[in-house]
Amino acid sequence: MILPKANRLTPEQVREITRIVELSGCRIQPIVGAVRTIYAIVGDERDELMFNRLEGLPYVERIDRIQSPFRLMDIRSDLATHRIAVGGVILGQKLLVIAGQCTIDPKNPNYFLETAAAVKEAGAHVLRGGVWKPRTNPYAFQGDDKSLDILMEASRRTGLPVDTEVMDEYQLKLALDAGVTMLQVGARNALNYSLLRQIGAAVAGRKTIVLLKRSLHMGTLHEFISAAEYIANFGNPNVILCPRGTAPALDGYRNHPDESIVPLLKERTWAPVVVDPSHSVGKASYVPACALAAIAYGADGLCVEAHVQPSRGIGDDPKQAITPDVLRALVAKAQAVWQLVRAGKPATTTVRAKTGRVARG
Amino acid sequence: MILPKANRLTPEQVREITRIVELSGCRIQPIVGAVRTIYAIVGDERDELMFNRLEGLPYVERIDRIQSPFRLMDIRSDLATHRIAVGGVILGQKLLVIAGQCTIDPKNPNYFLETAAAVKEAGAHVLRGGVWKPRTNPYAFQGDDKSLDILMEASRRTGLPVDTEVMDEYQLKLALDAGVTMLQVGARNALNYSLLRQIGAAVAGRKTIVLLKRSLHMGTLHEFISAAEYIANFGNPNVILCPRGTAPALDGYRNHPDESIVPLLKERTWAPVVVDPSHSVGKASYVPACALAAIAYGADGLCVEAHVQPSRGIGDDPKQAITPDVLRALVAKAQAVWQLVRAGKPATTTVRAKTGRVARG
Amino acid sequence: MILPKANRLTPEQVREITRIVELSGCRIQPIVGAVRTIYAIVGDERDELMFNRLEGLPYVERIDRIQSPFRLMDIRSDLATHRIAVGGVILGQKLLVIAGQCTIDPKNPNYFLETAAAVKEAGAHVLRGGVWKPRTNPYAFQGDDKSLDILMEASRRTGLPVDTEVMDEYQLKLALDAGVTMLQVGARNALNYSLLRQIGAAVAGRKTIVLLKRSLHMGTLHEFISAAEYIANFGNPNVILCPRGTAPALDGYRNHPDESIVPLLKERTWAPVVVDPSHSVGKASYVPACALAAIAYGADGLCVEAHVQPSRGIGDDPKQAITPDVLRALVAKAQAVWQLVRAGKPATTTVRAKTGRVARG
Amino acid sequence: MILPKANRLTPEQVREITRIVELSGCRIQPIVGAVRTIYAIVGDERDELMFNRLEGLPYVERIDRIQSPFRLMDIRSDLATHRIAVGGVILGQKLLVIAGQCTIDPKNPNYFLETAAAVKEAGAHVLRGGVWKPRTNPYAFQGDDKSLDILMEASRRTGLPVDTEVMDEYQLKLALDAGVTMLQVGARNALNYSLLRQIGAAVAGRKTIVLLKRSLHMGTLHEFISAAEYIANFGNPNVILCPRGTAPALDGYRNHPDESIVPLLKERTWAPVVVDPSHSVGKASYVPACALAAIAYGADGLCVEAHVQPSRGIGDDPKQAITPDVLRALVAKAQAVWQLVRAGKPATTTVRAKTGRVARG
Repeated sequence: MILPKANRLTPEQVREITRIVELSGCRIQPIVGAVRTIYAIVGDERDELMFNRLEGLPYVERIDRIQSPFRLMDIRSDLATHRIAVGGVILGQKLLVIAGQCTIDPKNPNYFLETAAAVKEAGAHVLRGGVWKPRTNPYAFQGDDKSLDILMEASRRTGLPVDTEVMDEYQLKLALDAGVTMLQVGARNALNYSLLRQIGAAVAGRKTIVLLKRSLHMGTLHEFISAAEYIANFGNPNVILCPRGTAPALDGYRNHPDESIVPLLKERTWAPVVVDPSHSVGKASYVPACALAAIAYGADGLCVEAHVQPSRGIGDDPKQAITPDVLRALVAKAQAVWQLVRAGKPATTTVRAKTGRVARG
Repeated sequence: MILPKANRLTPEQVREITRIVELSGCRIQPIVGAVRTIYAIVGDERDELMFNRLEGLPYVERIDRIQSPFRLMDIRSDLATHRIAVGGVILGQKLLVIAGQCTIDPKNPNYFLETAAAVKEAGAHVLRGGVWKPRTNPYAFQGDDKSLDILMEASRRTGLPVDTEVMDEYQLKLALDAGVTMLQVGARNALNYSLLRQIGAAVAGRKTIVLLKRSLHMGTLHEFISAAEYIANFGNPNVILCPRGTAPALDGYRNHPDESIVPLLKERTWAPVVVDPSHSVGKASYVPACALAAIAYGADGLCVEAHVQPSRGIGDDPKQAITPDVLRALVAKAQAVWQLVRAGKPATTTVRAKTGRVARG
Repeated sequence: MILPKANRLTPEQVREITRIVELSGCRIQPIVGAVRTIYAIVGDERDELMFNRLEGLPYVERIDRIQSPFRLMDIRSDLATHRIAVGGVILGQKLLVIAGQCTIDPKNPNYFLETAAAVKEAGAHVLRGGVWKPRTNPYAFQGDDKSLDILMEASRRTGLPVDTEVMDEYQLKLALDAGVTMLQVGARNALNYSLLRQIGAAVAGRKTIVLLKRSLHMGTLHEFISAAEYIANFGNPNVILCPRGTAPALDGYRNHPDESIVPLLKERTWAPVVVDPSHSVGKASYVPACALAAIAYGADGLCVEAHVQPSRGIGDDPKQAITPDVLRALVAKAQAVWQLVRAGKPATTTVRAKTGRVARG
Repeated sequence: MILPKANRLTPEQVREITRIVELSGCRIQPIVGAVRTIYAIVGDERDELMFNRLEGLPYVERIDRIQSPFRLMDIRSDLATHRIAVGGVILGQKLLVIAGQCTIDPKNPNYFLETAAAVKEAGAHVLRGGVWKPRTNPYAFQGDDKSLDILMEASRRTGLPVDTEVMDEYQLKLALDAGVTMLQVGARNALNYSLLRQIGAAVAGRKTIVLLKRSLHMGTLHEFISAAEYIANFGNPNVILCPRGTAPALDGYRNHPDESIVPLLKERTWAPVVVDPSHSVGKASYVPACALAAIAYGADGLCVEAHVQPSRGIGDDPKQAITPDVLRALVAKAQAVWQLVRAGKPATTTVRAKTGRVARG
């Protein structure tokens, strides 16, 4: 939809926009109003270049896009019945709990092995463990390849699939070779399209699941879902969206909690949404409230940092990690809120699952 | 705490800051560090002018304030045990539900009278009804004095205390004379200090309660609590804080939902917090999720727009108002989440209530 | 323009939206696309209630507004040739400089009288002096009626028209009675519609000019221009828009400088734009850079805080006020940038001024 | 500086914080105030883990950091006299102009060769040409290795050094092998620490210059300068900071223009700042105003998109690129504003350059 600056375009201007949209296989239909005439673009309007050219015209006030640019992740795509499963949970049918340490301490593997056992006991379905860490300060601890062995040992002992963040091709290869089930793309890399493509290519044909964190800035939902499309585009649509707070931070939190976007995401995409309350608020004492709010907003799961002894942790754990006891109580409350929220809603979930494909990680 | 731009101040600069703080009855204590020296302000540092003068010095990088500027609303003030009660609910002990129409239609009083009966039946303790309306568009309906009669008639019929927004002294006087129990300060007037003072003066010595909405901008908590202090300062501390979403809006909502500030407010002030999910999200279908999230974050109550026939409403009701049926289901779920959230927490509430004063509206 | 959630509306849904728009004298025209059909609203679409009703429909994804809601302030309105003049400057033809103290100190009138003489000498056309002050902290100095006498005395001595902020009807009356030429609406009251109406009514039939500051939140341009429409609507269109920084603050400034909105405002409204760099950045040393940036963006003038001895000032002056020497150098540079920016542009200004009305304050 | 929640810490709590800070070689010094006691951390407080541990303590309200975490990029570091030179310009002594196409069209190399010649003639010192492009839409054109040959051919013909964005190790290697002088890190990768390290390692020992764009979110200056520290840390400190607008966008622009951060950056770091007005505003007609505002704020240079025939361009060029004629006029005005802004300032630049090192790209 093209809105001119003037009340209508001149015949010459109409010829120019017609020429541009016809290059993309579309046509122009004028909508003559009482005061102002606007111009609809009829056809498959997903060509970015067409939009950029139209927006560059000096007599155009703005362009409104009507059509979704998402082919795979769109709520109206054929994949809308696709279901993702991991750790024994079919997303959407049961609350998924991912829990574990932000950072594995390579010098103290026992903390992580104890945390792994404890979070399993507290109700986690997937074990989170940070092997490599993006840190604002270049002189802070950046992770250690050795922690990958500790992570996989914890996976073997608990039987839980594991989730870890990868930031480049080297880490991606190591993680997949070691048998990591869930690859995490961090907030700082959510728009790193080279990495998204590398991951998309690497997980194509595998059952691997990608947990895609939301970028730090308060950007559009469009950008977030497009990033998932980058990965799915290579053939593996097992992408979970993970809001984790945006910048600038709310006065007193680490970030601005953003669980409220869940209903907005769910109107546009079929992708499951798992919220990370730990990074959203950045302090252990606020985590349970934020986690329950996420469930209230319709989140399909939680990704929570936990540690058997937070004060002995490294990375963000001393600030953010909750103890297994707090996690256990939180999971119980979260499940109760989950039931409440879904009570009385039409059971579309079950119907879909029957006809849909279920991918198990 | 004064942080200089250089690693330390010159003796002359120290004399200058000393002179400034001594005018406000404070003194300077240097903190000598390994690399840098900083300068503590010792004493009652609440004098704004002292800060403005110090911040104006060219050699000062920044000033960190240590002391709360709130005398009455501070969590550590003597009023911390004060309890507010309205509609049979002592805030903090039971979920408070305020519900009703955004705008009373003076041409169709029956809608409001029916809504009033219906929201009471659905569980509301206070009846909300907009008599005068702040509207972005000067040509939109701005309210009507006659609606005040309809509001009070609904109050008599239902026995519910009523809440209505006032925007100036004229409306303030009419509302108080008519017997309005709860005066609402809207988001656009949250920093209108003339109005806050007029209200503070008018409610002093009365049992009236003020519902103070949060300003639209993503400002500091400091400003929000200060606005409450403006009112309380005149003698009536019955101020309830009401987050209602901030600007810029989250992609798809009317505003950026801000219920997540509840824990941050509660660390700083004893004032009860009642969240308005209707303005936060701006569309009826999103309201229940936002309301439950507010309870998850520890809100003491909800202020919800409801209408017996939203599509026949005026003002924001056609967009935002939920039906009494949806309200009833929401209240039940909200009470359940309220119980869950508070389960296992130390019952400080009850203890406080014993020793505290309870003001009933 | 109505965008449905589904690819098209059912006949029943079309009947419903048709019924709603016909109530406002409009009609529906479907635009049939290859994949999706959208529905244009043809007619005068400025009825808010029609929009609210359409947005409330569960099958509507969003509504795009095509038509400007501004009748008087719109760039395409008949008032587009109206020119405002004050202090010997026709806005748009010469850089307007408003300068003076944030706060007049009633105990030290000489500071203000000296400042007045100094800013005139430095090039100011209008004298700014704060009589009443909105302060975040209720215990801070709030202004004093006596300062109005000092302001008017300074006006008499310098011959400069004066600008002062009013926050309620009492102050409005005093200011107009005293002969204040320019009434300032502060950022906190920019959406206080009761005040805007009171001012609009009071200045109708006078030559008074209103300097309307932008609200603190990063709201839409729409809200800002609508606030001006509130005032102009009563008959006096002498409204100047004044961006002054928004919240949340940029890391290190008092606010987030927003002079960059000038070109966006000028595309939508004919109203002159005068930028306040002092509140945007909040510290004297940053003011000149911000002021020149405002001119670079096409501002018609500056509103700057200045004081003969900033460190002796009260209110914000110790932090923000520049000295007359700095102001003089700034005015010279600003005029040079003004010339540069306008060089080579078609002289629409002059043409307009010939046919337009010029109101002199 | 540790601020406790209570008015002072218990002896046990003091022992706990003492134990934590001593692990990082610091000590605690209490500052006893009239009402409240706070606790200074004395020593080298740059250990992130120490802060995370302190912030995790339940009795701590907040921690204020006093010391800069930057070792190399800090304004007080030994590198403060380091000067960067490229294209015949010593940054800080003369306005640097980087100009060229957002995207080189591999099918129409002549456009770029013509643009290169034209921007040189218009006053550019460095030629910008996008070989690989980060695009929100995975189906949009993503760049082509062949464009690198076109870029280098243009460099040979014009004699201008070239600037191109790299997003991964593969592109980094190709670009350096081809002889690219200035490597651009895009906004989406500004916090991609793996890439920053790869670039840092690759440019160590070379004269290559890195143009580091600011991340899209309105993050802290701290994060921006830290990203530069990541690169410089490997031995080559030739990093230029490039603000280019942040999200969320200002109503009508592509982003929220952020040239106003220049003075804030320059207080903290010696790194030169070159502003990109093209991405800040996103539309050709707004670019000159934004560019001049950047110079007004003290920017050391501009990075501008230009194209001989914008409407024939690909990528963002049809929207954002200005023509060589507009560029030429802009450069002239920018140089004039540059002179004005610096007039009357102490010539610290020249003095520094004498004693400092100058690295020429």
